[in-house]
This record gives sequence, structure tokens and C-alpha cells, in this order.
Amino acid sequence: MRPSQRHPDALRPIRFTRQFTCHAEGSVLIEFGNTRVLCTASVEPRVPPFLKGKGQGWITAEYGMLPRATGERMPREAARGKQGGRTLEIQRLIGRALRAAVNLNALGERSITLDCDVLQADGGTRTAAITGAWVALRDAINSLMTNGDLKTDPIIAQIAAVSVGIYQGVPVLDLDYAEDSNAETDMNLVMDDAGRFIEVQGTAEGHPFTRAELDALLELGAAGIRSLHTAQRAALETV
Amino acid sequence: MRPSQRHPDALRPIRFTRQFTCHAEGSVLIEFGNTRVLCTASVEPRVPPFLKGKGQGWITAEYGMLPRATGERMPREAARGKQGGRTLEIQRLIGRALRAAVNLNALGERSITLDCDVLQADGGTRTAAITGAWVALRDAINSLMTNGDLKTDPIIAQIAAVSVGIYQGVPVLDLDYAEDSNAETDMNLVMDDAGRFIEVQGTAEGHPFTRAELDALLELGAAGIRSLHTAQRAALETV
Amino acid sequence: MRPSQRHPDALRPIRFTRQFTCHAEGSVLIEFGNTRVLCTASVEPRVPPFLKGKGQGWITAEYGMLPRATGERMPREAARGKQGGRTLEIQRLIGRALRAAVNLNALGERSITLDCDVLQADGGTRTAAITGAWVALRDAINSLMTNGDLKTDPIIAQIAAVSVGIYQGVPVLDLDYAEDSNAETDMNLVMDDAGRFIEVQGTAEGHPFTRAELDALLELGAAGIRSLHTAQRAALETV
Amino acid sequence: MRPSQRHPDALRPIRFTRQFTCHAEGSVLIEFGNTRVLCTASVEPRVPPFLKGKGQGWITAEYGMLPRATGERMPREAARGKQGGRTLEIQRLIGRALRAAVNLNALGERSITLDCDVLQADGGTRTAAITGAWVALRDAINSLMTNGDLKTDPIIAQIAAVSVGIYQGVPVLDLDYAEDSNAETDMNLVMDDAGRFIEVQGTAEGHPFTRAELDALLELGAAGIRSLHTAQRAALETV
Amino acid sequence: MRPSQRHPDALRPIRFTRQFTCHAEGSVLIEFGNTRVLCTASVEPRVPPFLKGKGQGWITAEYGMLPRATGERMPREAARGKQGGRTLEIQRLIGRALRAAVNLNALGERSITLDCDVLQADGGTRTAAITGAWVALRDAINSLMTNGDLKTDPIIAQIAAVSVGIYQGVPVLDLDYAEDSNAETDMNLVMDDAGRFIEVQGTAEGHPFTRAELDALLELGAAGIRSLHTAQRAALETV
Amino acid sequence: MRPSQRHPDALRPIRFTRQFTCHAEGSVLIEFGNTRVLCTASVEPRVPPFLKGKGQGWITAEYGMLPRATGERMPREAARGKQGGRTLEIQRLIGRALRAAVNLNALGERSITLDCDVLQADGGTRTAAITGAWVALRDAINSLMTNGDLKTDPIIAQIAAVSVGIYQGVPVLDLDYAEDSNAETDMNLVMDDAGRFIEVQGTAEGHPFTRAELDALLELGAAGIRSLHTAQRAALETV
Repeated sequence: MRPSQRHPDALRPIRFTRQFTCHAEGSVLIEFGNTRVLCTASVEPRVPPFLKGKGQGWITAEYGMLPRATGERMPREAARGKQGGRTLEIQRLIGRALRAAVNLNALGERSITLDCDVLQADGGTRTAAITGAWVALRDAINSLMTNGDLKTDPIIAQIAAVSVGIYQGVPVLDLDYAEDSNAETDMNLVMDDAGRFIEVQGTAEGHPFTRAELDALLELGAAGIRSLHTAQRAALETV
Repeated sequence: MRPSQRHPDALRPIRFTRQFTCHAEGSVLIEFGNTRVLCTASVEPRVPPFLKGKGQGWITAEYGMLPRATGERMPREAARGKQGGRTLEIQRLIGRALRAAVNLNALGERSITLDCDVLQADGGTRTAAITGAWVALRDAINSLMTNGDLKTDPIIAQIAAVSVGIYQGVPVLDLDYAEDSNAETDMNLVMDDAGRFIEVQGTAEGHPFTRAELDALLELGAAGIRSLHTAQRAALETV
Repeated sequence: MRPSQRHPDALRPIRFTRQFTCHAEGSVLIEFGNTRVLCTASVEPRVPPFLKGKGQGWITAEYGMLPRATGERMPREAARGKQGGRTLEIQRLIGRALRAAVNLNALGERSITLDCDVLQADGGTRTAAITGAWVALRDAINSLMTNGDLKTDPIIAQIAAVSVGIYQGVPVLDLDYAEDSNAETDMNLVMDDAGRFIEVQGTAEGHPFTRAELDALLELGAAGIRSLHTAQRAALETV
Repeated sequence: MRPSQRHPDALRPIRFTRQFTCHAEGSVLIEFGNTRVLCTASVEPRVPPFLKGKGQGWITAEYGMLPRATGERMPREAARGKQGGRTLEIQRLIGRALRAAVNLNALGERSITLDCDVLQADGGTRTAAITGAWVALRDAINSLMTNGDLKTDPIIAQIAAVSVGIYQGVPVLDLDYAEDSNAETDMNLVMDDAGRFIEVQGTAEGHPFTRAELDALLELGAAGIRSLHTAQRAALETV
Repeated sequence: MRPSQRHPDALRPIRFTRQFTCHAEGSVLIEFGNTRVLCTASVEPRVPPFLKGKGQGWITAEYGMLPRATGERMPREAARGKQGGRTLEIQRLIGRALRAAVNLNALGERSITLDCDVLQADGGTRTAAITGAWVALRDAINSLMTNGDLKTDPIIAQIAAVSVGIYQGVPVLDLDYAEDSNAETDMNLVMDDAGRFIEVQGTAEGHPFTRAELDALLELGAAGIRSLHTAQRAALETV
Repeated sequence: MRPSQRHPDALRPIRFTRQFTCHAEGSVLIEFGNTRVLCTASVEPRVPPFLKGKGQGWITAEYGMLPRATGERMPREAARGKQGGRTLEIQRLIGRALRAAVNLNALGERSITLDCDVLQADGGTRTAAITGAWVALRDAINSLMTNGDLKTDPIIAQIAAVSVGIYQGVPVLDLDYAEDSNAETDMNLVMDDAGRFIEVQGTAEGHPFTRAELDALLELGAAGIRSLHTAQRAALETV
């Protein structure tokens, strides 16, 4: 039995709160159970230097955790004077994942920054961030289209992410912190709505995993992501 | 008439949401209208090096803004590699203000860090932070007393803060961003529940202010802070 | 009795040495008793990026202490790799105060940087810095007018600053280090020559202060600043 | 046809030069074709603070590229003042991979740092680094056993890594730079000598990949890693 | 003819002002013409970690320039967040030179830091710094001996420094800025009172120099340093 | 007898390996005995801001040591977040030395960066770096001339460097680490092929040195550098 009492293939309750804050073009509070991440999409009319004059846009992401998002207070990265390796790794992942959702040529010479800030952490913050950021991005691009700034929709895929892992020998979906910190294997999957992979990142924590275990995890994750895609669409239908 | 349509002596709607997040010993979302600051109080069983072995505790504060808390996205301080002067100035102010609320000898050899993170900004973030942080501190200390970690209450004062300013020649209370960015004079007051001053910080933005204007601002602020003290106590009475 | 043996309303001996160094357009060694601050005003023919092309000038300030300006040696900020919060807070204050002295439109597209470096510290370094920097600024602008670079005088106010505080229950003027480190309340005032306030920054160190105490401090400070204004004018009359 | 003229399942020529430098306990120059990485293993008789007194050891890794290891000169990270996100991500991967090779309890309270410095880059530097670092680690631990510092061998697995990807629709093994920069999908695999996975990191560069493509890449990589394990053992048999 | 109108072998007017500031154990304002450097010697009862428990002392130096010590304002190193290469090079030189003056074993487990801060620059700041720092060090050690903290004098040599260079083909002593910035060769010499060398640092600026030129510069510098030694002793005789 | 068993005037075996890596315009592995430094020369079609539009080129250098180039592992400068004083001092020296070899006007508006990375250290890394960097520079400029990018050769001098020192009272040439760390005096010489000096940097480590000792060291170094010049030319004659 999982510490969370969930069935191995059960997601935690998923909740999207759109327009969570008022300034950003897209602003979504995503909850995977007790994990809560505020994802904002900010549109800016410029691109980084390496893209200047190429007629295409850019999507990037930044990730942070509030110091007391976790059980013990973590030092504030701004005060320490640098972002840690884990932070950089996660924000690079979020950026790559969301760029796979967009035709950058169709976006025009503008940037969208996805800021994913963890208000409360209970495992799976990076997968919640990607799943929420896609909805924030969708909202931001809808506002550009409504304003007439964009004529054609640059979004080419619906993206969501989930974690899977092996806990006490059993493949389980969407690990919370208690499960994740004791998992033997941990894998994050990012997939599109055609069931294809954007990212597969599996790490043996306790012991190496076999091909059969890998296959089981991939199946479990694919099913979980289908549910997340459905939840994203439902969230976007509400006003 | 103020842009906010408020009477000169009217606060914005004030709202406290306690237990906003689950890990911190105190966690309060404070709202001054559209300004929303998450204030967490984290208790740790150690003190900074300069206090080691002196038998007393420590209260400190850190302040941050999410990049898109504002109308235009601001660069993330963790990514820039340092906290700006404004951030440091504000967190020093919050720390001094809250230390005035506590008998550090009665706190014992432990630290409480007040993290004040602005989720949405509309003027007055530092005064909202102080007002909310005091409630988070009260909750954290209550939990220490409930656990038996503290026998006597180290809190010696109730602290709140508000901004006042001169807008188009009229002294007004609790300025929002539209008012603050056009004010001729801007003042932040921190006071205790005996009506005494902890901090007075007045700055001539547009033109120098006279003693009569200063007096008017002090009166206006003192009345506003009395209302905030009442609101803090009401928030603490709910479960 | 004050440790300095002064009457409560007595300033320390004030001394201005103009042209203390030879390169800067304005260079003033200001002494408030044993506190000695070198204030230089450097004119540069450019403005910060946010002001480019707006036809106006800029005044800014930087503050530093030599490592052994104090009783115990302090680590050098350049070696530590960053300016501390206290330094940033003080230099922001000096900059705001001096900007209140100048019509930036009349200054033209040039910057004046006021570097205030403490050679010897004995309390009140920030107020000495502001008082000395105004004289350095006056000298620098005089040189621009003499050279014909400026036709009309952009200086619109004479600015000085002083500290006041409550020491053993008595309001006292211009605290030295021995007094300041034991004061119950500490306040810095910046005022113009019309008796109006530019900045009021009061902090309860030992215990909160009442409105009556605040009023007494404001009176004491205003009188002190009138003397400083007289001393500034006298210093400028010498060649 | 691949730019490198290789068959899809062909590795580049692999070469290990042990004792490439004289000071380190293990020092291996690994070559995957034109990619050359110097991997040193340094033994130190201490562990990081979080492991003090726990009776176990630690394995960590650092990664760097010489500025002109690449076709165009890259800025030196030491001069820029920080390691980039890519560097941190790679060195975290190398560290995790090598920790999977060692029973940290059997290592005793000592650290081994694996420095992987790229002298010349032509794609696949992180997989070459892991493959070479394992040999350097083996040499360093052999020297501890020879000296009598270790009685039992703490190495529990043989680890190697390779990249696979889809180039012009064809799954290919061990991509060089020309192939990697045009691949549609890029995957790095780290496996042990029992054919189990330590890490799977797949990224869709050009377009998302299907489950069938993923399966093909996993097969290709597993075969490549078997060859690398053989090459590692052969290298260790020479004196 | 030199721009300074001096004879090739003439020093600038040299002036030492002891007790220039009041807190430091040694505090000397040294002037080489218009070059003015404040040298303080700070005694602290501890040594750096690498010397702990070895029963010996340490001498170190730090160097800085006030931003407007020069003709054009230089950015403040504390604000830029790091000391430049020139600064580090100079303070390493000063530290080495002064350590040559002291028997560190006889100093006991204490450190003396020599802070050399340039108030006004006109060439030769590093040689002025060394020459002044030796007097500050002498004063600091005298105070330790007067207090009974030291029984025997740890100073083993009298140290001074001067620059020499080739200006328009002629070897000249103690170059000011106008000379130094046009010199073909620039050399700094540090010597003891027995006429021996502590440091020789010669750099061809305009064109390489011959052995004959080097010999001429060494002679010129040795004579200049003899004069500086005399001036140091004279300064120490005054009260 | 020297620890290295060499005669006082004997260099260590000197070896140049050109084209050591494949991307750089010049790439030389220089060996002075066990000291091995990789020197690459990178040509870039731009100059630093202070030279823009002046029609001349620039030569600069950077220096680094791999963490385990030394007997004990040194912290990686990129991870520490800054280059140390020793590193900056050395790379400034290398840059000055190589600029003396080139007519910057004849180079045109391009930069050449000499990266000198120590793979293995055994004393004399800076002199090996200069000696090797000159060969890398020669190769890079030859390639510019071969390509027709340069019509006339901008190289105006052949540059090499060596260390000399006094070991147990005897002047010795080209000190290895065992000798260098026990030398009483340490001097680095950079000279051109006309026997003139580019840099002379002598430091008394153990005790001050006399003029006679200095003369002996200069003779010894000049002879050593003549041999290095011959070795450089021989290396360039091979294909």
C-alpha cells in the first residue's frame, strides 16, 4: 500500500485555478494534491540576442521554490546569490518541454516566459509545473489572438507531465514526497496529446531498473498523462 | 478623488488567510486590496553565530517578489545573482519591526525567519508584509507554547504597518500603486498597539513636505494602524 | 549627561575642507567631530539607460567605509564581493536626498555621482555624508557654470542632515558612536533651507517612542539642521 | 548515410589512456573518436558536512570544457563567475551515475571526486565522461586496496554510457557533433554490466518520438554499452 | 626634461602623516607628491585557518582606490562585485613585501592587516603604499610592545619601494602619472635597508629593455630607496 | 645537488606537440619535464569595446589549472565562482608578454586569445605557458597568412620565458615544484630573441637577495631562454 493510500495507477486530486494573479497574460495555480505551483506566462515584445532579426519567437522558463515551500526551510536562492543545479536543471526541462508545444516561427518576434514558483511542495513539482505552465501558455496565447496580435495559433501540441516510480517493488503513478524520497526508481515523463514523448528522464535511486520495469513505468505514465490532458482541457473550458 | 475611489482615510479591504500553506509554523496570506503577500514564520532550533551561547533568540526576515507579481515582469533576483537594494532595505525594515514585537531573551535559543513573498503587487507590499508577518509570528509562537517548547509568551507587542502619502495635495491612507507612483510624499509607519512608533519612514518624492503635512500624515496613519490591529486580532480569533 | 559632555542640543564641531582631493569637480572632507567623510562629486557626460534621450540629468550616490574607519576592522566589501544591506540603504538615502536639491531637467544630459567614503567613523556617517555631499555638489555645479556648460543654476534647494535620538530618556542632537549605540530611539532627518522635510527616518531601538518624543526629536533636529545650513554657506564663502 | 560514414549501430573508435597524468589516484583520457575527455579520480580523507560521522563515503563529479575544446571558443566559466546550467546538469548526471557503481558504506569516510574535463569536443562528451570516469574510479579504488586502505572492494557495478538518437529517421548509435546537432531525438543511456538502467534521458529535439522509436533506441544503446563494458575491461587488463 | 620638471634621479616631495585616523593601531597618510595613500595597520588576535595552532603570526594586505582618486571616475569595486586583477596583483605584492619585514614566529598568533587605500592617485600608488605601510606596521608593533603584548621586536627589516622607468630614453626615478603612462619601461623595486632586493618587477611597455638599461634602473631605484628609508626613520622620530 | 639531479644551468626536457587539439587555429602542448600546459590560440573577428574602430587588433590570455593538475586536488575556480589572485596575475603576465610579440596595428581588427590550461603541474607553469603560447600564436598567424587574411606578418619578436631561483645558495635554472617550494628566491624572466627583457619578476621568498645574486640569476635565465628560442624554432620546422 502506498503511503498516500492511492492505487498504484491513481493521480492525486488535480486542480487548476486560472487567473490566480491579475497582471500576467496567463496565471495558473496548479495543484497535484498538496503540491501547489503558481505558473505565470509573461509576454514581452522582444527576443534574446541570438534570435534578433530572425522573425521567430522564444519560449523560456524559470523555476523557484519559496523558502518554506518544504518541510524544512531552504535557503533563499536570491540571498545565496545563485540558483542551484537542481533549479537550473528543472527550469531547462520546463523550457524545452513548452517549446515543443509551440511553432516559434508562428509566434513572431516575442518572448513568453513561464515562471513556475512552488508555493507548497509535496513531490512532483516539476511535472506539476509543466502541466500548469501549458495552461498558462494557452491562456497567454489566447489573449494575443483575442487582441489581434496573432492571427494564427502557434500552439502545435498539448503537453503534460507526470512522475512515475517504483515504490517497494511496485510501479506507481504521481509520487508524493513520502513516496518519492523512498522510491527505488524515479522517472519523469513529458508527453503530447498524440501519445508521443517529449522527455523521458529515468533515474535509478535505490537500484538499477530492468527493461521490464521501464516498460511498466512508461505504460503507467502514459495513462496518467492522458488524464492530465483531459483535466487541462476541462480547465480551459471554464470561464 | 483618489484613483481607487476611496475616502482619504479609508483602508483597502484587508484579508488574512491563516494556514495558507501547510509546512510553516505560521503561514498567512495577507491582502491589502490587490496586494497579496504570503508571510511564513519558520522556527529553527539555532541562532546566528553572533548570538551563540547567549541564551537568547533571534527574529529575522526575508522579502521577495515573484517575477510577475507586477504589471511588467521583473528579472528574478535569484537569476540575477543578487538581491537588489530595495529588497534588502525592505527586509531589514521587516526584521527590525518584528524584533520589536518579541522579548528575545524569552524566546530561548531559537530563530524565527519571516519570509514575505509578494504574489501580487499593487502598492504597500512592505506594510502588508509587516502586518501579515506579525500574525504568522503569533501563530508560530502559539504552536511553540502549545507544544510546551515555550512556557511564557515572548510576544510583548502587537505590530502593524501602513503607508500614508500626499496625493494631489491631500493626505491619503494606504496607497495603491496608481496612487503611490504619483504621490508627492510617501511615508511608511510601523506602530504598536499602545499607539507608539516602531518606525517612521517618510520620503519627499515630488516636493519637500512641511511639518503640518507630516503631522497630518502621522494622524492618518495612526488611525489606519488601529484598524489593522483590530483586523489582526479578529483573524486570530477564527480557527 | 551625554558621554560626549555636550548639551542635548549641541552639534559636534563641524568642519568642511573643500578641494580635499584634486581630481573631482567637487571634493569635500566633512567632519562631524571625529566622524570624517570624503565626499566627491564627479560629473560625467552621460545618463543611465533609463534616461537616455529624455533631455534630463541624473544624480546618484555611492557610500563606503574604509575597513579600519571603525574601532574594529570590518571586512572590505570589494573583497567580500558585495555591498551589504546597510551600505545600499545608506547610498539610496544619500541619492534621494541630493536629487531633491536639483532640477534634473535644468542639469541637462549629464550625471553627477556623489561618492561618500568614510575615512573615520564615530556615529552619524550618513548625515555627515549628505551634508558634505551637498557642498561638493554645489562646487561641481559651480564649475559647470563657470565653464559655461550650464547657463542656469539647477540647484533648487540647500540640503543638510542630522541625527537625533533619545539617550537615557533625553532627546539629544547629533549622536556620536557611544551615544548612538546606546540610544533608545534613533532618527535621521534631511531638510531643506525652507525648513521642510526631505526624509524622516526614525527607528525604535530600545523601546517604541511616543508622539511627544517624536515631536521633541523633530524640533531638535530642525534647529540642528539650521546650524548646518549656516555652516555650509560659510564654507562656500571661503576660497 | 551518417555524416560519419558509420553504420547506424557502430561506435566510434574508443580509446582509454590510463595514467594520463601523474598526480591523481586515477587518471584516464577517454576518446570516443574526436571527443577527448580527461577523467581524474581524486581520493580525499573527508566527507561533505551532511555525511560527517555516518561512517560512509561519497562520490561526486565535476565537469568542465576547455574554452577552445569546441569549434568556436566558448567563454571560460571561471572568468564568467559561474558554471552554466548545462555544466551543472552534466556533472550532476555523472555523479549520480558513478554513485550507482559504489557501495558507499564499504568506501569508508572518504570522498572520491571525478573531474571530467573536455579537452576536445565532438559530441557525446557526457557519455564519454561517465565511461572514462568509471575506469578512473576503478584505478583509484585499486590503489586504495593495494595500499591496504580498503580491505573489501566497494565497487558493485561496472558502469558505461552512450548516446543514441534518430538522425534522418534512422536510429543511430554514439552521435558525433555533426549528427547530434541535426538529430530529431537525442537520448543518453547509462547502464550497468547486468544490462540494467541507471539513467535514461531522452529529449525530443525536432519532433516528439513514438514508443516504437523509443524501443529501438533502447535496444541500440544497450548493445553499444555492452561493447563499452568490454572495452573498459580490456583497458584495465593492460599495465 | 620630465613633465614633472624633476631631475631624473629626484623623488617627489615625500610626506608621512602618522595617526592620520584614530582607531587603527598604525595609521599613516603617505604622500609621494600628489599621490596620497592611507595605510592602516590593524592588529587582530587570530590567524587564518591554515596557520591555526602553529604558534606564528600573519601579515596580509588589502588595496583599494576611492572611485574618484583618479582623473576619471572608476567604478567602485564593491559595487561591481569583485576586485579587479590589478587590485589583487597589487595587494599580493604589498603583502609579500611586508611579510619580508617581520619574523612571523616572533609575532605570535596574531594577524596584522595593512589596508592601503588610495585617496588621490598620481602614479606610483603601490610603491607609496608599501613605503607607508611599513611605517604603519612599525607603529602597530610599537604599540604591541608598549602594551606588553610583545616582548621582543618581530621586525627584522626596514622596507621601502619606488618605481623607476625609462622616459624618452632616459632612466628616471619615481614616475608620476604623466610620466608613467608614457614610459617605455616601468619597474617597481622593493628593497630592505641592507640594500637587498625583496621584489623586482620590470615590464617593457613600449619596447623591450636591454641589460644595460636594466642595470641603470636598478642603480637609480636603489638610491631612491635609500632616501625613502631615511624619510621613514625621520617620520618615526617625530611624536 | 638539485632534487631533480640536474646541473644548475640545465633545463628540463622540453617538448612541443603542435596540433594537440583539432579546433583551435594554434594548439600546442608544451612540456617542461612533468609540467604540461595546453596552449591554444583562438582567432576571433572582433576586438574589445575599448578598441572598436581603431583599426588595430588585440592579444589576450587566460590561464587555468585542472583541479587535479597538482599533488592535492584544488577547488575548481568555475565552481568557486571566481578566479583567484594568482590566476589573474599569471594571465595578465602571459597577455602582456605575448602582446610584446605582435604589432597590433598589423594584426587588423581581430583578437587572438591564448588559453593556457595546465593539465599537469610541476613548477614553472607560467613560463611554460608563455613559451608554448608563442608557438601557438605563430601557428595561428601562419594560418591567417596562408588563408590570405593577413598579407604581412604582424609578429615582431620571438618570446620565451623561464624561471630561475636560488636553491640552497646556488642559482639554478627552470625549477621544478620540489625546488621551487624550497627556493630562497624565485624569478621569472620573459625575453625576446634579441636578448632583451620583456618582464623581470623576482621575489625574495626566504631571504632578500643581493645585487650579485640578481646578476647571476639574470645570466642563467638569459642562457636558458636562448635554448628555449632554439627549441621553439625547431618545433615550428616540423610538420
